[in-house]
Amino acid sequence: MTDFSKTRAGFYIPEGMIYLDGNSLGPLPIAAKQAAARALEQEWGEMLITAWNRAGWIDLPRKLGDRIAPLIGAEPKTVQVGDTLSLKLYQALGAALAMTDRKVILSDQGNFPSDLYMAQGLIQTMDQGHVLRTVAPEAVEAALDDRVGVLMLTEVDYRTGRRHDMARLTERARDLGIITIWDLAHSAGAFPVHLAQTGADFAVGCSYKYLNGGPGAPAFIYVAPQHRDHAHTVLNGWLGHATPFAFPLEYTPATGVDRMRIGTPAVVQMQILDAALDIWNGVNLEDLRSASVALSERLIAGIEASCPDLRLASPRDATMRGSQVSFHFGEAYALCQALIARGIIGDFRAPDILRFGIAPLYIGEAEIDAAIAAIAQITQDRLWDRPEWKTRNAVT
Amino acid sequence: MTDFSKTRAGFYIPEGMIYLDGNSLGPLPIAAKQAAARALEQEWGEMLITAWNRAGWIDLPRKLGDRIAPLIGAEPKTVQVGDTLSLKLYQALGAALAMTDRKVILSDQGNFPSDLYMAQGLIQTMDQGHVLRTVAPEAVEAALDDRVGVLMLTEVDYRTGRRHDMARLTERARDLGIITIWDLAHSAGAFPVHLAQTGADFAVGCSYKYLNGGPGAPAFIYVAPQHRDHAHTVLNGWLGHATPFAFPLEYTPATGVDRMRIGTPAVVQMQILDAALDIWNGVNLEDLRSASVALSERLIAGIEASCPDLRLASPRDATMRGSQVSFHFGEAYALCQALIARGIIGDFRAPDILRFGIAPLYIGEAEIDAAIAAIAQITQDRLWDRPEWKTRNAVT
Repeated sequence: MTDFSKTRAGFYIPEGMIYLDGNSLGPLPIAAKQAAARALEQEWGEMLITAWNRAGWIDLPRKLGDRIAPLIGAEPKTVQVGDTLSLKLYQALGAALAMTDRKVILSDQGNFPSDLYMAQGLIQTMDQGHVLRTVAPEAVEAALDDRVGVLMLTEVDYRTGRRHDMARLTERARDLGIITIWDLAHSAGAFPVHLAQTGADFAVGCSYKYLNGGPGAPAFIYVAPQHRDHAHTVLNGWLGHATPFAFPLEYTPATGVDRMRIGTPAVVQMQILDAALDIWNGVNLEDLRSASVALSERLIAGIEASCPDLRLASPRDATMRGSQVSFHFGEAYALCQALIARGIIGDFRAPDILRFGIAPLYIGEAEIDAAIAAIAQITQDRLWDRPEWKTRNAVT
Repeated sequence: MTDFSKTRAGFYIPEGMIYLDGNSLGPLPIAAKQAAARALEQEWGEMLITAWNRAGWIDLPRKLGDRIAPLIGAEPKTVQVGDTLSLKLYQALGAALAMTDRKVILSDQGNFPSDLYMAQGLIQTMDQGHVLRTVAPEAVEAALDDRVGVLMLTEVDYRTGRRHDMARLTERARDLGIITIWDLAHSAGAFPVHLAQTGADFAVGCSYKYLNGGPGAPAFIYVAPQHRDHAHTVLNGWLGHATPFAFPLEYTPATGVDRMRIGTPAVVQMQILDAALDIWNGVNLEDLRSASVALSERLIAGIEASCPDLRLASPRDATMRGSQVSFHFGEAYALCQALIARGIIGDFRAPDILRFGIAPLYIGEAEIDAAIAAIAQITQDRLWDRPEWKTRNAVT
């Protein structure tokens, strides 16, 4: 059994804070502080340019990819880390569209908007008559047909936590000759993912949510083994070149998933992520999932028993949820602010959703119970009803 | 007069090291250590998700752009920081191509290859018959004609330090209706740049060289005031959206240079860069240039007097050089390794170039003289001739 008291000891959580927003930004792994100090002082400071070799900076995108691969059920040497999720999605879609003559990209209205925006930008640039078709999440399966070239979905809805049946949709897609791209932003580190087993073609994700890599931590891209030596590249950066340090004037992609590298890697962020990933040593992802489901059920039951004004926005069936629980509430933004004022950190998504991320690595029953009690009191006594909590900040 | 003893005190340089590679990676500003610790401990650690507002993370790309703008002679609110130089070049080129019906992109063979690769990727994706034409650097001006749509150049050659006449080429280009994109990788922080005055349309650059932002520090993009509200976007990330936190499904670019934002910013790298930029307070860029030219002339004179086997690769005329001095030497790689072994850090570029970056912020006459003496001894006594210095590492 995974010892979650041990993983919890690996994080710094401020005194008195109950942190239920790891679905947006994971908390600080204590080891990350030393990793950042080492990257700055022993590496940048002492080795300077020679650290590219001596401290292994140049290999970080591949090394971190190899460390993330087992967490998402990927084969070795199929994952590369770097840039941002939006950019990795753009690369995956560029590669996928080059593999099919079909013009329809199917996605859903629950996808994170940036994925849709990047797709809109790419098909406009390609100008070859591609269409991005978005349907309701529950209508995706019925919308799969042989006109669809690429199925591009985020497994878990960022607002409600609603989870697609990735194995089933990937299988249906494959049967119809459709290339699949899965965005694992709310999956990686949240529950077991089985990329190799499901036969997904491409996947992308970020590392600052359930992987706790810190603000601005790099993204990752997965390219299935059968595609990695042939995948078309659209963002032809020098570090994705076959021979970057020979500096030829013509682009030739590297062999393997290395071709998905673009420019100079964000070394400091990567060294922090490397330390953050140490927390996964000894964690069984099935245990993590069981704990997440138990805590989620406890939160739902508690809120429904004591806070009748909140309405569950997440699926009631745990198998259809990721690792977050969301509720509708008319004054969700103000309620979120009132909770933050008490050190209970969830977040708000327009128009009326309050989200709570469930991360058993550092959250237990006591935190869930305290959150329930606080929400009950705040809603029963309308403590959220303050003018200063009705004005929205830039990020919430 | 700029007090360079004061700027030098702002850097950590290892005891006994003479660092002449700031053209590749600037050294550690002492304040960067505290900035990183603060970003991790007081911000990420204590504020967690609320730091996006409370610590101003969400505004970092714009704030840092506003701080870099005066260093490159740009108007206020024309610069945005983020991602990597290759990606910012891609965005600039995408915007530029949307402003012209002409099909020729003109560049030169001295451009950094990644810029050419990104352009090759973009025009392949656009598939509208664009051509990337590269000529010898000295042939650029003669190659400007009314078939050229975009002139895309790096001002300073990464190998030789040869510098284009940016004002003249920009003016000629403008007279011919050509959009200009300048890569300032080896210009920003190296000498005065006058973007507004020259009338450049777009510029891009990185912050880990002469701006000392650290390994993987973010890039920047400049969009001239007359374009910033209309520039076409090709990488449509959510943070470049007009209303990112309303999460609409259709992309609408933000007003101004904010539209060049893509995904979640690399917060830790940006806070480090913010601290690194403090060093520029009180630095007069004309003084910097004078000091750079004096040190460069001293290095050239010293090497030519005592190391006849090295042949100057940089222009002899200081007005045609950036802030680096390069030499040809048959065994440049081994010589570079022999110098590194003595704590004198320059770098090598294939096939036979030894580069020395001249950064008066932390280098003075004593360092130049010590480097000359070491090179003289190593070449006179063939001390570079060791087998272990003949095998090249991944990055050099």
